[in-house]
Amino acid sequence: MKPPYYAVIFTSLLSEKTKGYDKMAETMETMAKQQSGYIGFESAREELGITISYWSSLEDIKNWKANLDHQMAQKLGKEKWYSWYKVRICRVEREYEFNN
Amino acid sequence: MKPPYYAVIFTSLLSEKTKGYDKMAETMETMAKQQSGYIGFESAREELGITISYWSSLEDIKNWKANLDHQMAQKLGKEKWYSWYKVRICRVEREYEFNN
Repeated sequence: MKPPYYAVIFTSLLSEKTKGYDKMAETMETMAKQQSGYIGFESAREELGITISYWSSLEDIKNWKANLDHQMAQKLGKEKWYSWYKVRICRVEREYEFNN
Repeated sequence: MKPPYYAVIFTSLLSEKTKGYDKMAETMETMAKQQSGYIGFESAREELGITISYWSSLEDIKNWKANLDHQMAQKLGKEKWYSWYKVRICRVEREYEFNN
């Protein structure tokens, strides 16, 4: 996939109620991968968690956000797992890679 | 800062030669913060490292990439610290935030 394509940067801090979080995160990752327009996924957490998903179009991002299971996960995320998060919808304009 | 603004997503895997890496990463973070157009910085590493810097314009990103100390860090990064990295230049189109 060459640019332009889209990225959703999801940056988060967890609350102290993390029961069920890991399992849900795994389920959502599996489901996202089956969505139309899905390109890729990158994730790392220290205290701050960063999850980036890559998509072919804004329409694909909208469809994934509206997915019913994903909506339930978003609801639980707000009620329980996250103390803070920020979502940024981005257009990837250019990219380059280094391989040693 | 409201969108549109720009993000540089830097995703990397470290080699086994990490001597000097932490100190350089810290120096580069400090220097980036002093650059014109700098907005913010987010970073996390598990095996995969994700560092995102946010900038007011593409020009600011170009200037930071061309900074002489940063060029030295990029050279050392390729020679020693990174086995792989990918850089994506993105335009942040939209954002929203949750605070509990």
